[in-house]
Amino acid sequence: MAVSFQTHPDTYKHWTLKIDGERADLVMDVQPFGGLREDYELKLNSYDLGVDIELADAAQRLRFEHPEVKVVVIQSGQQRVFCAGANIPMLGSSSHAFKVNFCKFTNETRIYLEDASERSGQKYLAALNGTCAGGGYELAMAADYILLIDDGASAVSLPEVPLLGVLPGTGGLTRLVDKRKVRRDRADVFCTTSEGIRGKRAVKWGLVDEIAPRSKFEDAIASAAEKLAATVDAKKGPGITLDPVVPETDDNGNLHYRYVTLELAEDARTAVLKVKTPTEPQPTTAEEIQEAGAAQWSLRAFREIDDALLQLRVNHLDIGLVVVRAEGDLDAVVKIDETLDANREHWLAHEILALQARVLRRMDVTSKSFFALIEEDTAFGGVLFELALASDRIYMLEDDDEKVSVALSKANFGAMRMPHGLTRLEDRFQADPERVGQLAERIGERLATADADELGLVTWAADDIDWDDDVRIALEERVSMSPDALTGMEASLRFPGPETPDSKIFARLSAWQNWIFQRPNAVGPEGALTKYGEPDRPTFDWTRC
Amino acid sequence: MAVSFQTHPDTYKHWTLKIDGERADLVMDVQPFGGLREDYELKLNSYDLGVDIELADAAQRLRFEHPEVKVVVIQSGQQRVFCAGANIPMLGSSSHAFKVNFCKFTNETRIYLEDASERSGQKYLAALNGTCAGGGYELAMAADYILLIDDGASAVSLPEVPLLGVLPGTGGLTRLVDKRKVRRDRADVFCTTSEGIRGKRAVKWGLVDEIAPRSKFEDAIASAAEKLAATVDAKKGPGITLDPVVPETDDNGNLHYRYVTLELAEDARTAVLKVKTPTEPQPTTAEEIQEAGAAQWSLRAFREIDDALLQLRVNHLDIGLVVVRAEGDLDAVVKIDETLDANREHWLAHEILALQARVLRRMDVTSKSFFALIEEDTAFGGVLFELALASDRIYMLEDDDEKVSVALSKANFGAMRMPHGLTRLEDRFQADPERVGQLAERIGERLATADADELGLVTWAADDIDWDDDVRIALEERVSMSPDALTGMEASLRFPGPETPDSKIFARLSAWQNWIFQRPNAVGPEGALTKYGEPDRPTFDWTRC
Repeated sequence: MAVSFQTHPDTYKHWTLKIDGERADLVMDVQPFGGLREDYELKLNSYDLGVDIELADAAQRLRFEHPEVKVVVIQSGQQRVFCAGANIPMLGSSSHAFKVNFCKFTNETRIYLEDASERSGQKYLAALNGTCAGGGYELAMAADYILLIDDGASAVSLPEVPLLGVLPGTGGLTRLVDKRKVRRDRADVFCTTSEGIRGKRAVKWGLVDEIAPRSKFEDAIASAAEKLAATVDAKKGPGITLDPVVPETDDNGNLHYRYVTLELAEDARTAVLKVKTPTEPQPTTAEEIQEAGAAQWSLRAFREIDDALLQLRVNHLDIGLVVVRAEGDLDAVVKIDETLDANREHWLAHEILALQARVLRRMDVTSKSFFALIEEDTAFGGVLFELALASDRIYMLEDDDEKVSVALSKANFGAMRMPHGLTRLEDRFQADPERVGQLAERIGERLATADADELGLVTWAADDIDWDDDVRIALEERVSMSPDALTGMEASLRFPGPETPDSKIFARLSAWQNWIFQRPNAVGPEGALTKYGEPDRPTFDWTRC
Repeated sequence: MAVSFQTHPDTYKHWTLKIDGERADLVMDVQPFGGLREDYELKLNSYDLGVDIELADAAQRLRFEHPEVKVVVIQSGQQRVFCAGANIPMLGSSSHAFKVNFCKFTNETRIYLEDASERSGQKYLAALNGTCAGGGYELAMAADYILLIDDGASAVSLPEVPLLGVLPGTGGLTRLVDKRKVRRDRADVFCTTSEGIRGKRAVKWGLVDEIAPRSKFEDAIASAAEKLAATVDAKKGPGITLDPVVPETDDNGNLHYRYVTLELAEDARTAVLKVKTPTEPQPTTAEEIQEAGAAQWSLRAFREIDDALLQLRVNHLDIGLVVVRAEGDLDAVVKIDETLDANREHWLAHEILALQARVLRRMDVTSKSFFALIEEDTAFGGVLFELALASDRIYMLEDDDEKVSVALSKANFGAMRMPHGLTRLEDRFQADPERVGQLAERIGERLATADADELGLVTWAADDIDWDDDVRIALEERVSMSPDALTGMEASLRFPGPETPDSKIFARLSAWQNWIFQRPNAVGPEGALTKYGEPDRPTFDWTRC
């Protein structure tokens, strides 16, 4: 059954979102029999993808619908258990591809909590009222502050290595040493101690920020929440309502959103992702941005792209190649970008830019090949040109009439950074960093094919005699290659230059986890993940490599 | 059969090393039937581990035995072929563990060529007289300058993805975009074009630095070599002779070197790596350093550690845990470090420090757990304390008489950087960078257990009542865990903070390659690596993840 990524607080099964002035409480109370599939039980606040989809939705809504909120307290609705992490029977019975995509989405969600803290001044407090294991502690580490109950029993732990033979796969190892800067040898002890660490040692080692006895736990939450809120001085709002982004599916299985279409050619293992520019007028002032709310193209279209990317990842596993097209009015996009940039101090313009950046980063780490096709009447301008820059290749049609063109906007020069911290132009011009400055002088100009090619913005320019063949052959060749080799290749070539904790999570950590998720020691019939919960121990091949 | 990493130019099968003043020529002429195993043929200058062991030996000897050399020309001894890369039948018929360890060693060798260029002023020129594919081009990219013959046919290529369904696994993807800064979309085209790219386009895209027709090829080599040599102004030498580092094997299979012992408890999947300090006098001046040559402890002991690490990796795959011990005279090590540091402008002292750093980096990326045990009469001082800092945990015995101590030297503060560019103390004290400065003030002091623990240098201090049990339980627990999960965990926890191209090769690139090396699309009965050279095409599972 296809997974839907659309939800709403009114229909959450596992979370409750309560708003009280500057504080929000996000309470996790996972329904054991409310999982996406029926063959596992979500005990002890363990989660599956459905639980995480609600969390991601809540974090997104908090930024748009409740911008006045300055601190979000993540709590458990269950007694003496905060969260036991990802559900193990679910993982054990899932395909390799599902495990990989599940971890990718949960990683993004946690990074989005940090993004909300950094860019939107919504600080997160994790209030751990009891057991906090594995993915539960990884969720806590995504928060700005961790408060652990001090009851002589409740501990934080990452028991994946000793109990399951896999890694904490949701950023845990990276956050432990990179974000919380726990000393590497202590991290080693912690990650191999299944019962975890509690009390004063947890504070001393930097695993949590504070402990409080049960009698003072609620007071400690309130006090910590107040302190976190006091670090934020922005006044924002009023919030807007995020309407549902639900595509219509036609007879061929293609998805039609308002501005986005996802055409699926499953036999050719290819999809076409089309984004149309708006025909109706768009905001030109801060007031109009506020008034237009979720209906404005810059927000709506990117929410639709986001959903389409998730659909591709989870519901269309055999699609290997995505052809990216931007259609409509090139100048219209550049103008919308200009308006957002001019009003970037306005809370909603700021949020829209941050959302567009997140969607583009979701594309950067999506394991599909992307080819952008730039022809007549395409509209690769500004933020839509970022879709081309995020693609593995850019094909552009040569024409003598200069009807085919692209354009840059301020959006290409800082607001849309990749996971490793560079803009896509900086990423592209590693060999010639001055080029980025030269391109900034061309903002707003229509750059025809010869110009764009000369400036290094195009992979391949072809005239209309060669175009169809060149493109057809390129698409056919791409989908004939090993999907695994392409995934590994793209994950390497897309990210030259520096790494950040975010990019390290997808590179160093996830790549190793994916390896382990293939190994018989984890997933074989005698592997640790398979044997978890059974009376007999796993049997390991001891080879170290 | 156990692999030996010791060789000498006189016994090379596949390479010839010729020295002519400031220029060395390293000529590759792989003997088809001279492989480490007999079940594959090394056609077209393709290589196996044995070929790479000779290359690593040559690069090492050039630094120590021929320090006057300023440029090394890597050439082929075969007509119209430079190097076809790693031998595919060899890879296809090797175990997963062997493939992983083979790639790790070849990666280190290429990084060592770059290290020789950067730290020893021995520049590398790759002169490509013909086909240069896969690992052949990866070898070329390790050089400072790539000259390609322009004959209308000879191309550079990375055909792994389209032909073999695996990645270029010897740093190729990283060097392409990080070192040579090839634009990512061009890199994408290049890495999916099996026939490669030649001529002017190869220069334009930055894949090679120069092309020359056959008639002018030798002149072009000479001219490029001269220019490279002219960038180096150091006068060094005279060279020393590196004597063989061959251990004696006792009845229990333990290896005994002059200063190093490797005790192997295969049943317990544990080894003990012991390093003894010298009892004979060591150099105290530049003249004495020069005179002592390869016999001095600082060089000999680290060459022995290096060999022991390689033995552990390749010949003792089931060993999961290495107990590290330094024995002897703590002050002696600190004194040796002092002498080397005081004479670090002397070419040989400089080379010894660079070699020690390489050996320690080899330890950083070795997929074994390391626990350092510091007790009475142990000698963890300075560069030997780096062995402890490179370990996953450090256990130190508490004693009231302060007989147990460690000491720091200048070697801990810059000369021994990890692959990601940090010193091991910087790596350790991410949360408290000022601590590194405080520790620098304690150089040369004997730090007893309480002090060392207080300063954060110790994972676990135990008194002699608890020591035996604490250590025994820690060792037993460690070797009971999944070796794969430990490998992934250690690869993440050891490297907090920044990444460099070197560290990215072992993290982002190698981790993805290891994943692919497990996937049926590469290594299954219908996988691309398995099917290579056979008439029928591989069959892929198209799932993208």
